[in-house]
Amino acid sequence: MKLLRIGPAGREKPAALVGDDEVVDVSDIVTDFDDSFFGSGGLARIAPIVAERARTGERIPLAGRRIGAPIARPHQIICVGLNYSDHAKETGQAVPTEPILFTKSPNTLVGPNDDVRIPRGSTKPDWEVELGIVIGARTSYLDSVEQARDHIAGWVLVNDVSERAFQMERGGQWLKGKSAETFNPAGPWLVTPDEVADVTDLGMWLDVNGERRQTGSTATMIFDPFVIVHYISQFMVLEPGDLINTGTPPGVGMGFVPPVWLREGDTIELGIDGLGAQRQTVIGPR
Amino acid sequence: MKLLRIGPAGREKPAALVGDDEVVDVSDIVTDFDDSFFGSGGLARIAPIVAERARTGERIPLAGRRIGAPIARPHQIICVGLNYSDHAKETGQAVPTEPILFTKSPNTLVGPNDDVRIPRGSTKPDWEVELGIVIGARTSYLDSVEQARDHIAGWVLVNDVSERAFQMERGGQWLKGKSAETFNPAGPWLVTPDEVADVTDLGMWLDVNGERRQTGSTATMIFDPFVIVHYISQFMVLEPGDLINTGTPPGVGMGFVPPVWLREGDTIELGIDGLGAQRQTVIGPR
Repeated sequence: MKLLRIGPAGREKPAALVGDDEVVDVSDIVTDFDDSFFGSGGLARIAPIVAERARTGERIPLAGRRIGAPIARPHQIICVGLNYSDHAKETGQAVPTEPILFTKSPNTLVGPNDDVRIPRGSTKPDWEVELGIVIGARTSYLDSVEQARDHIAGWVLVNDVSERAFQMERGGQWLKGKSAETFNPAGPWLVTPDEVADVTDLGMWLDVNGERRQTGSTATMIFDPFVIVHYISQFMVLEPGDLINTGTPPGVGMGFVPPVWLREGDTIELGIDGLGAQRQTVIGPR
Repeated sequence: MKLLRIGPAGREKPAALVGDDEVVDVSDIVTDFDDSFFGSGGLARIAPIVAERARTGERIPLAGRRIGAPIARPHQIICVGLNYSDHAKETGQAVPTEPILFTKSPNTLVGPNDDVRIPRGSTKPDWEVELGIVIGARTSYLDSVEQARDHIAGWVLVNDVSERAFQMERGGQWLKGKSAETFNPAGPWLVTPDEVADVTDLGMWLDVNGERRQTGSTATMIFDPFVIVHYISQFMVLEPGDLINTGTPPGVGMGFVPPVWLREGDTIELGIDGLGAQRQTVIGPR
């Protein structure tokens, strides 16, 4: 399945994609794609209903409708830093020996095509195309990496927008540069694992104003998604619906010489094979 | 007011303290002390009702009842690191020039007297008595430090339990050592600002097995609570009900020579003037 949420910000309705450009509404059977949905076997429950509605139900054209993030605001957004060996190299930092974790405020989550707002005082706003993991069940102390497969609800395309001066030059921890509003566009849809043949071999790209900036593949991840979920579960309890951003391949603005930063009016487009594409306009501070 | 939540874990009911050892139930007028409560003027709405019930309503004795955390699971828990000059010194780290921020998983929040569980693989579990700030309104880009006063719902005693090996020796960011389940006992109650004459001059203490380990005062904070809220609001949007742990005074286990770590069976007791006291038993890994 490809699940998505459609409607005005804050009032999105849960739906499922049918074909390339139509959806079926499931808001009569699901309140939201949230912790209680994922934690109560919601995916398995709605799968036959979505299949039936795709055959016989009312199909709504997607064109002209706002798409929200495909999940409700999660309990937490955890990110893995420097998880592509070639990206670690471009930032001048050592390849990590175990996953580096940091967080973003959950309220950074927005739709895939919503505006990205430069925060006040920002001098170094940057982009990061990433594979996101949505957690499907309460997850603690997994016994094996293999077991992580049973705890993943699906995959989602994410732009892990970053402010490098806030992240690196303001004292210590990275969340300061990761948590501004609109800094986590996600979607257009949550793709369930059965629809992705090999999540460790997906092409990724990101353009700014039509110029290719990032080109990569999840194949060059240092720690793959299953290793990451197993690893995090040794330190904390992941809740259903939690989002994990798994790191970015080379080509972020910080990596260019001289660096290239986002500017008001820029257009960011990004995609991952099989997970869809996003397009954001960069707007100025509030 | 002093607000608290009473009942079994996950099924706490909102209440208010009356005198020293009784409560009045407010669960008929308040679903929970959560984002929608704080964000909709809930404190002002229930104040006259609590006062009336304290005079005429049914008083329930507190003795024998479990007290939960005084707020529902927040959107985020943000912590300020090294915020007491003497604590920074004991850890051998420089006094920060601006607040160091890190996060804990929101699901670490437990009641003030619940067990603290040592995580698997832990070698350096530690304690931290702290003043917690509960945010009372959506907070973004405050114009002044003074304005922060209008965005604070109240104060709460917190034990910011930490695993120092996970925090410092496992690659980069601190959340790994802060996010294990049970790592954020809070309460017994949320004390509204009108009941605290000067939040920047409150005595703090923490004992392990009856031995005094931490003695301090909020007077030695580097960045006071109003500065902290104003500061954070420049980087992210704080939601109503968010919790901010404002740092710990000297006397953490890491600061002793040799260091002193928590062990299964230990008893931790802690308190802050006017905010009540906590008592936890340390239990072994799951």
